[in-house]
Amino acid sequence: MQTRNLALAVAYDGTEYQGFQSQPGGETIQDYLQNVLSEVTEAQTIVYGSGRTDAGVHARMQVVNFHTASGIPADRWKFALNRLLPNEIRVCGAAEVEKGFHARKSAIRKTYRYTFHNGRVPDVFDHRFHWHIPVPLNLNEMDKALPVLLGKHDFTSFASSGATVSSFERTIFEARLAREPNRYGEPERVIHLELTGDGFLYNMVRIIAGTLAEIGHGKRNASELADILEARDRARAGVTAPPNGLMLWNVEYEEKLNFA
Amino acid sequence: MQTRNLALAVAYDGTEYQGFQSQPGGETIQDYLQNVLSEVTEAQTIVYGSGRTDAGVHARMQVVNFHTASGIPADRWKFALNRLLPNEIRVCGAAEVEKGFHARKSAIRKTYRYTFHNGRVPDVFDHRFHWHIPVPLNLNEMDKALPVLLGKHDFTSFASSGATVSSFERTIFEARLAREPNRYGEPERVIHLELTGDGFLYNMVRIIAGTLAEIGHGKRNASELADILEARDRARAGVTAPPNGLMLWNVEYEEKLNFA
Repeated sequence: MQTRNLALAVAYDGTEYQGFQSQPGGETIQDYLQNVLSEVTEAQTIVYGSGRTDAGVHARMQVVNFHTASGIPADRWKFALNRLLPNEIRVCGAAEVEKGFHARKSAIRKTYRYTFHNGRVPDVFDHRFHWHIPVPLNLNEMDKALPVLLGKHDFTSFASSGATVSSFERTIFEARLAREPNRYGEPERVIHLELTGDGFLYNMVRIIAGTLAEIGHGKRNASELADILEARDRARAGVTAPPNGLMLWNVEYEEKLNFA
Repeated sequence: MQTRNLALAVAYDGTEYQGFQSQPGGETIQDYLQNVLSEVTEAQTIVYGSGRTDAGVHARMQVVNFHTASGIPADRWKFALNRLLPNEIRVCGAAEVEKGFHARKSAIRKTYRYTFHNGRVPDVFDHRFHWHIPVPLNLNEMDKALPVLLGKHDFTSFASSGATVSSFERTIFEARLAREPNRYGEPERVIHLELTGDGFLYNMVRIIAGTLAEIGHGKRNASELADILEARDRARAGVTAPPNGLMLWNVEYEEKLNFA
């Protein structure tokens, strides 16, 4: 029996889920995907994600792959799976990939977006997807701090303990703060921290976001970020920002996946 | 005892509520506002809304007013009330208004926005706030249909029975379709029907939205909208679009309210 390797582009609102990775209890993205794939393909199916996202974290574009003998054409998977998935998890497309493709191991670039809502009153429509900070942030100071993160560094200071990794070195390719007005036209109220790198340590984006917020509050200077990075000491960095502001934005591979 | 008249700008996610207007059971926006105002002012307080919104309909900017003897300064109400309100209802600001001001009777322009999501796969983040139509809509035909609504007309064809009104005449000042890309950069996937008028009949925006969708589907020609309007017969128009796509966007008064 011939086996195909398929990648899926998956979006989810992680608010009510226990993160991506399978757990007893089953309220995870991986469990839901595996269950509906097993149902549709009538065979026990394992899903490999590009990375774990924690409880409450969202994904615009998570990539997973799975092996199957099913003959369902690539452009039909989204309909077959979405029919069975809860509203908060959507398969946006499927792509046929090479036998050796692995959603995590083959990934070369990942982008996370962390969103702050910097208005006096919480937003009723998007509160599931941002960290509300009512006190005005100094965005210019936050901008100034970012470039020190670019390039290859040991990010120990920005990693929670708990994950076993062989190296704390990661390379950040892009780091920027994007600004959007809120729904009332007030400028610079929705602030997106966008980080692209070859990979991220456990809680790395959330700890960077928490430290940046402290810079925005004036509790720290922009220049401190370099000292924190150099110290290789988690205790030197700021708080871990809450999970709901975090979204896995994109995962890129050597060859662009053509999701149908 | 001196009585003040105060206006509030209120936003809400109506998904889980039984509409604006007070009802037995109390799961309405008006009931929640009256309860927290009565608690904060320590006096039974009645709230007057600019208009009713149905169950499941949202508001970016609903305006209400109430009379109170409380001395709380205008810029403190949002904090006092939001502390007690559920996350889905937020007071964005308060403004001191003249004794004769009434949120509904004094309103001169209202804007509603109806949002269609025209992508193959439902959006996990905004599904509470739009009508998902997976089949591509012909937006140019929908554009062509809109100008006939402008001006003063008898809108009987676009009104659900159930409301007692003295006249079915309303004036539409602006009618347009705004287009936004979705979160994946695909153009024209989030379509906003924006209607500004001196007032709207019961379900009027939702029936116009439902009829426009049928024009977008090619089930009707753009030119039919004129015939439907002239017929003054609800049976001639299209379906009533679902409530979740509708948002009360703005309410305007002779004098601009300065919400603090």
